[in-house]
Amino acid sequence: MAFTDLSIASEATILPILEIAEKAGISKDALELYGNFKAKINVDQLRPVQKMGQVVLVTAISPTPAGEGKSTVTVGLADALKQLKESVAVALREPSLGPVMGMKGGATGGGFAQVLPMEDINLHFTGDIHAITSANNALAALIDNHLHQKNVLHIDPRRITWKRVLDINDRSLRQVTIGLGGPGQGIPRQDGFDITVASEIMAVLCLATSLADLKERLAQMVIGYTYDKAPVTVRDLGAEGALTLLLKEAFKPNLVQTIEGTPAIVHGGPFANIAHGCNSLIATNTARQLADIVVTEAGFGADLGAEKFMHIKSRKGGFNPDAVVIVATIRALKMHGGVTKDSLSAENVDAVGHGMVNLAKHVDTIRQFGIEPVIALNRFSGDSDEELSNVLAWAKKEGIAIALTEVWEKGGKGGIALAKLVKQELQRPTNFNFLYKEEDSFEEKLRTIVQKVYGGADVQLSDVAQKQLVELKNFGWDSLPICMAKTQYSLSDQPKLMGRPEGFTITIREIIPKLGAGFLVCLTGDIMTMPGLPKKPAALSMDVTADGNAIGLF
Amino acid sequence: MAFTDLSIASEATILPILEIAEKAGISKDALELYGNFKAKINVDQLRPVQKMGQVVLVTAISPTPAGEGKSTVTVGLADALKQLKESVAVALREPSLGPVMGMKGGATGGGFAQVLPMEDINLHFTGDIHAITSANNALAALIDNHLHQKNVLHIDPRRITWKRVLDINDRSLRQVTIGLGGPGQGIPRQDGFDITVASEIMAVLCLATSLADLKERLAQMVIGYTYDKAPVTVRDLGAEGALTLLLKEAFKPNLVQTIEGTPAIVHGGPFANIAHGCNSLIATNTARQLADIVVTEAGFGADLGAEKFMHIKSRKGGFNPDAVVIVATIRALKMHGGVTKDSLSAENVDAVGHGMVNLAKHVDTIRQFGIEPVIALNRFSGDSDEELSNVLAWAKKEGIAIALTEVWEKGGKGGIALAKLVKQELQRPTNFNFLYKEEDSFEEKLRTIVQKVYGGADVQLSDVAQKQLVELKNFGWDSLPICMAKTQYSLSDQPKLMGRPEGFTITIREIIPKLGAGFLVCLTGDIMTMPGLPKKPAALSMDVTADGNAIGLF
Repeated sequence: MAFTDLSIASEATILPILEIAEKAGISKDALELYGNFKAKINVDQLRPVQKMGQVVLVTAISPTPAGEGKSTVTVGLADALKQLKESVAVALREPSLGPVMGMKGGATGGGFAQVLPMEDINLHFTGDIHAITSANNALAALIDNHLHQKNVLHIDPRRITWKRVLDINDRSLRQVTIGLGGPGQGIPRQDGFDITVASEIMAVLCLATSLADLKERLAQMVIGYTYDKAPVTVRDLGAEGALTLLLKEAFKPNLVQTIEGTPAIVHGGPFANIAHGCNSLIATNTARQLADIVVTEAGFGADLGAEKFMHIKSRKGGFNPDAVVIVATIRALKMHGGVTKDSLSAENVDAVGHGMVNLAKHVDTIRQFGIEPVIALNRFSGDSDEELSNVLAWAKKEGIAIALTEVWEKGGKGGIALAKLVKQELQRPTNFNFLYKEEDSFEEKLRTIVQKVYGGADVQLSDVAQKQLVELKNFGWDSLPICMAKTQYSLSDQPKLMGRPEGFTITIREIIPKLGAGFLVCLTGDIMTMPGLPKKPAALSMDVTADGNAIGLF
Repeated sequence: MAFTDLSIASEATILPILEIAEKAGISKDALELYGNFKAKINVDQLRPVQKMGQVVLVTAISPTPAGEGKSTVTVGLADALKQLKESVAVALREPSLGPVMGMKGGATGGGFAQVLPMEDINLHFTGDIHAITSANNALAALIDNHLHQKNVLHIDPRRITWKRVLDINDRSLRQVTIGLGGPGQGIPRQDGFDITVASEIMAVLCLATSLADLKERLAQMVIGYTYDKAPVTVRDLGAEGALTLLLKEAFKPNLVQTIEGTPAIVHGGPFANIAHGCNSLIATNTARQLADIVVTEAGFGADLGAEKFMHIKSRKGGFNPDAVVIVATIRALKMHGGVTKDSLSAENVDAVGHGMVNLAKHVDTIRQFGIEPVIALNRFSGDSDEELSNVLAWAKKEGIAIALTEVWEKGGKGGIALAKLVKQELQRPTNFNFLYKEEDSFEEKLRTIVQKVYGGADVQLSDVAQKQLVELKNFGWDSLPICMAKTQYSLSDQPKLMGRPEGFTITIREIIPKLGAGFLVCLTGDIMTMPGLPKKPAALSMDVTADGNAIGLF
């Protein structure tokens, strides 16, 4: 097939966003158009609803380089539900430009299950991420200006934790020294850049419930410590007003559409490691106002995205998922069963069988939350019948609902079987429960995640983390939920331990308080907060036609 | 008066941009709405016109900290022409966020002579500057990635001239070291950040005539030199397609409106020192398609902005100004006459008289271009009658058209007298001529600018510049026009030499080829390409109301 996501998107019929909005019951007054196919929603002007829509969370097995197609299944499932005449909306994260220019692949689904206009969404979209870059770096400039202008707050330049950001993959900016050049050019110090989606401001924007809440959360962010090791916040600098001003438009959710005309709210995209990896709370709740069923996703596998969706996003938002879909592919199961990327095209029924332990663990995890998951076995063209039927048979034997999906090739039609299973689950009441309570001790929360979600034996803190925990407790910050920053490739903290490792110990190397976002990031292993470009960046194949159409976006 | 620009803007009646567009003859199909009050124009879809509109260039005396109000007069003049039933449009630069967050003051005019929606225009507007930031930094990341991935082009890390940018005032980023941290984190080297509007990409966007021309200019940009001192271009890296893709929306001019409903094209805003300081060529030409008269401005005084408007922008654009307005204020003339900023409120007729030499020089300069200028004496509330009448009398004696303007307080009504004089000039044919030809030698061009425009005696090149000139000639780049980077405060290169200095020599310290923009920047003195924040940044007084309205923008 010579189809690419871009070619399919370009050929697709896209409806005026006003038409999508009207069908979704959004009045023209509540919309701010960005061209004919994108709009921001003024949520204050939506009409109130009696009952908010149900939430379907799409998660996945531990991701592999083979690709699982979680966003694609999310979009395809929504379109399938629409084909079944359900009132449905999809709520997705917005893509970061960095990876788009780096590796092939946007974050708007794929094939016949994508959101449109894919070109715009994958480039600057409505400018939300640029606004976050501006706000993040305005704060950084205000901090360094404070140092330069006599440093009344006594901020210790060696203890500034607020980093600058750019929405680009740029390894050279990970570790820098700034303020060089003499007394007129600021105070020299070590610094570094993260990718914008790793900014705490992104997490804040995605968890805030109102403009006032946004401002309060921004004010609470810790930017560093004084020479006396007291925390310094944005409020101490008096910068929360300016930051809120810079973010007020970015805070409004964006309305676009799927390739089959389902309303799609694409808004917010925090990193799934250093942050919670879900689209914005305000977007999900806006979608719940518009439709009876909202299909949404969370970053990485169920051990990371789904766990954080439950314990962080749902908890703040006052709702819980009514159904959970776990996406798996034959290719990814093979890799969990020990096959290397180069050998994926060969049939290997045994490896699929070995890799299913990873899927089984994620099923167990979702069940612990009181929800009966549905597996979406996302078919790729090279999958053999025996490989597929083995997985289907296993699930049936274990009593787990499972459906084959072919949404990349067939759109909503390829997700009808999955949609029917999801509808069944939605009609069944869940027994949702959090695995840990907010009032549990830091150590209890941590152990719960490691043992119940990762299936590990124990957790230990590095010397640094132990010292940090003492400080956190002194400041009274230890009652916050935990946001784990762990490799997505393994249930453990060792990327190469695929499948379902057991008996392992997770080591917390560092604890980073994110008071604005409202969680404590627990770092395990090396977490990359600024990606690098590959040998052949995708950017080098990009171009524009004379008519202004994109070339080389995938 | 308790009025601020923001309060006036908030109280003003703003028309739907569709209505402004309709009146200007722009079909709905040629518009992409950004909310209800901003739109991008697809220039390919404008209907062709028989005759392009005439151009009125608004320039000023050498600026002073007292403020002249050039943008305000530009807007007020357009609104006055509208009141006189002329078909008129205004073409302005778009503001950079850095100075907005730094010093009080946007770039959307002021009082009752401003463009709306001022809040949006002064913040993220339609994202053009963010797109330039992205493209500039994507290129920087591709360069450093090239170094990291075996450096096939043999780029000398010490000779990379392409800097990163942010749209923020941040002195700490002027001189940095990047790529620290070991082999996985890129190649360590010295680097620095400019403010986005100083990026060559901004100049390129403002001088390109089509998307194809934009791409070609981007391809020609020099990013550094090899170990053998051969220039390395964007084309060598293969990045021009991706950069064009990132800029394709930013390249479309933005339509907004003045407070009196005159169509305003606000697009592009290159630094007036390191670049040419005019709004985009495509915006000016779009405005000329929409209206019989286009009022536009150029940065700083006539020695800088107007000279570059003529020699760079007009030359590329194939038009010349049909009339020129020089803005002066009593306060600024007083400063040129030796008064300090603290003593400006006291009447000082003598100082005004002494300061008029600066105005007289700029009048002479415009006359050399074959255009008879009109002086706009922009009234401030503290000006005394005698101060004003002395200037008026002098102009009359010298045979220079002059009008008092009160557009800040009265809008278009306060600019009627000026508008009438401008109309007279527009009916008179100009004898426009360039002061130098493209085929003149580099030295001739330079001497022409220094002697004819600055009124200086001579020009000399530093040792560095002499060496660079030899290289430029070797590469065949010396046929490009010159873009002077000189202090705006003086006709000379000494900021403190106000009024009309004579007999001075200008020293060119460095020559920077900008092959994409198509000019050679000649640096004199210290030119700041990354401003710093002041002691009390404007940002710290900014906020948002519960309804989402801005507080603290001026």
